[in-house]
Amino acid sequence: MKIEAVDFWYLRMPVVEDIGDGSQDALLVRVSGGGQEGWGECEAAPVTSIAAAYAPMSHEACKPVLDGVIGATLDDPDDILRLSRRQRRICMDHLQAPHTWSGIEIALWDLLGKARSAPVWSLLGHRKVFPKRAYASVLFGASPQDTLQNARQAVAAGFTAAKFGWGPFGTAGVEADRDHLLAAREGLGPEAMLLVDAGQIFDRDVEAAAERMAALEDVRAGWFEEPFGGECHKQYAALKARFPNVPIAGGEAAHSVEMAEHAMEFGRVDFIQIDTGRIGGIGPASAVAEMARQGGIQFVNHTFTSHLALSASLQPFAGYEAFDLCEYPANPKQLARDISASLQCDADGLISASEKPGLGVDVDLAKLKKYLQQVEISVNGKILYSTPPI
Amino acid sequence: MKIEAVDFWYLRMPVVEDIGDGSQDALLVRVSGGGQEGWGECEAAPVTSIAAAYAPMSHEACKPVLDGVIGATLDDPDDILRLSRRQRRICMDHLQAPHTWSGIEIALWDLLGKARSAPVWSLLGHRKVFPKRAYASVLFGASPQDTLQNARQAVAAGFTAAKFGWGPFGTAGVEADRDHLLAAREGLGPEAMLLVDAGQIFDRDVEAAAERMAALEDVRAGWFEEPFGGECHKQYAALKARFPNVPIAGGEAAHSVEMAEHAMEFGRVDFIQIDTGRIGGIGPASAVAEMARQGGIQFVNHTFTSHLALSASLQPFAGYEAFDLCEYPANPKQLARDISASLQCDADGLISASEKPGLGVDVDLAKLKKYLQQVEISVNGKILYSTPPI
Repeated sequence: MKIEAVDFWYLRMPVVEDIGDGSQDALLVRVSGGGQEGWGECEAAPVTSIAAAYAPMSHEACKPVLDGVIGATLDDPDDILRLSRRQRRICMDHLQAPHTWSGIEIALWDLLGKARSAPVWSLLGHRKVFPKRAYASVLFGASPQDTLQNARQAVAAGFTAAKFGWGPFGTAGVEADRDHLLAAREGLGPEAMLLVDAGQIFDRDVEAAAERMAALEDVRAGWFEEPFGGECHKQYAALKARFPNVPIAGGEAAHSVEMAEHAMEFGRVDFIQIDTGRIGGIGPASAVAEMARQGGIQFVNHTFTSHLALSASLQPFAGYEAFDLCEYPANPKQLARDISASLQCDADGLISASEKPGLGVDVDLAKLKKYLQQVEISVNGKILYSTPPI
Repeated sequence: MKIEAVDFWYLRMPVVEDIGDGSQDALLVRVSGGGQEGWGECEAAPVTSIAAAYAPMSHEACKPVLDGVIGATLDDPDDILRLSRRQRRICMDHLQAPHTWSGIEIALWDLLGKARSAPVWSLLGHRKVFPKRAYASVLFGASPQDTLQNARQAVAAGFTAAKFGWGPFGTAGVEADRDHLLAAREGLGPEAMLLVDAGQIFDRDVEAAAERMAALEDVRAGWFEEPFGGECHKQYAALKARFPNVPIAGGEAAHSVEMAEHAMEFGRVDFIQIDTGRIGGIGPASAVAEMARQGGIQFVNHTFTSHLALSASLQPFAGYEAFDLCEYPANPKQLARDISASLQCDADGLISASEKPGLGVDVDLAKLKKYLQQVEISVNGKILYSTPPI
């Protein structure tokens, strides 16, 4: 088929709070061709990502992300890989491009899967899917008591693993952090897996992270995630060398295969967390999953938005039995719930990629009207982008 | 003083060609405060960078780049470093942000320098400036004969070093590349320094780059620049290990101190090329210059736009005697020439940072009216950005 159209919709909650909750807005992408539609989602900063899709060319290696997409052939996974290679070249100096491309690329896989009546994971070469243990991804509470409640809620909802992140962690002192960690462990009970996400709060400060490691060991943290900036591989490796018993997770900021590769090789993370909505989509994420397998590192998704994004992020590692954890946004905003039907966990708290064609997730635009943001970008009176009607 | 206003202007040549010439458009930034004005320039994709400045918040770590800038205090270099640290935190998931911030940060240094009647390099702690050998940065010609002419022009203009890049290099076979390299050497004569810029054309393909190394040795290339993608540190190191006699240059794509650090440490480049318009401005570039000194690596600017950008890119290494090369856009488009007066080389082809306050470069907006692009970005009818009148 030929790719006939690419459309973007910026959706937003009526109130966006200044908290580490990525489900408060969304940039949906629809790719149309051959009488079908494919859907994808870009992570964060919708207006900037839309601008990158349509911005006028600066030079040979700084073109709009959409350049050359409409009219291109899409019959085969190789067509997507070819378009991705081209995009990397023409947007070399267009920094936002990988985030914009991610949503388009995901939609291309969804479209191809629907055209072929095949789930995306099968197009990636996986023969079957393996269930993953869904961990509830929630924020630390404002107080340890709130964190305790959040933990109890996760257990009550059937999760056997939960991750606590952001909120006050790292900002109110070592003892305050210990109190939150103890509360989380208490709320989860002794059996559930407890994961901790520092949200890059220590940036480049290895000592500040090191001060939290005793408490993390005490609560038997399954991992300590993103203590440092996304590219601070040397700091990650330094912390690992000092505290070999606490697994380290990172990589969600990766906007290229290389950045993820470096987090594994130079940063020595134990878990590589990939967001398909940032790294350039499902193809690059799949390449990282295979690198992780070869390196004996655990691949896991990063997802803090909708179940469309969750389905996309499951595809690259759906067929790896050893990669048995999955980040599951447990308390997303209503917007994220309304984008698509949810992927349900089974009674054991396990989740699997859908067997349906494409991503196996339907998007009902009509339901999203109330969240729609009307965006217009023009240059010299010529409209480059205007939100398409729903 | 308080920062009172930040303004952006997108300027563009009437025709932007599909060539590797970064001087075809510009995003100028003016920061006003205390009755003075500071100027900066962001590298590439002006509409995307403007969008990043004003895009609505997605969450705690994905805010508009301008958040918290207007009204902030600017009395001291530490104020700029503090604003940069804050920007890094609030724009963690806003990929374009470092490019946008670069122009603002440069303008902050210019403003502070003017307020203090001191050149920026002195605010960075340098006691004096050392002259740099300006190398003419030009594109390969369409044919070897054109490349020969380009080389002769550079010599005739007084340059003792020249760099050839982009154009057909890497796309038409090993022999064609050799012909261009021989033509460049012939045109420059035996004495001048010949530098070669592959413009990332081989991306991840070490073998393809390796095939060019014999010709590069034959023409005594002073360096081979960016054979691979900006983050392909392992490929850089692999090529270096196989061909230790050809110096390798890279780093212009760095949008963080870490990325530059990795190019040096993991990529083993001999020359680290930093664009202050991408890495987050003059502060991060200065940090890289000091790392380079400690690592015995040569720091050099990357500049392919205006002399405002050139002046900004000179500041971080102005005071290092050992860093004695400077990229000099030899044939920029008229737009780039009109943005500011040129920094002139002396009779020996040497260039030095200005002794005047700030960046020492005046921008005459009135002269730029004909290049002005009228941009408007709105969400739900509310205008986030509209090009300010000149």
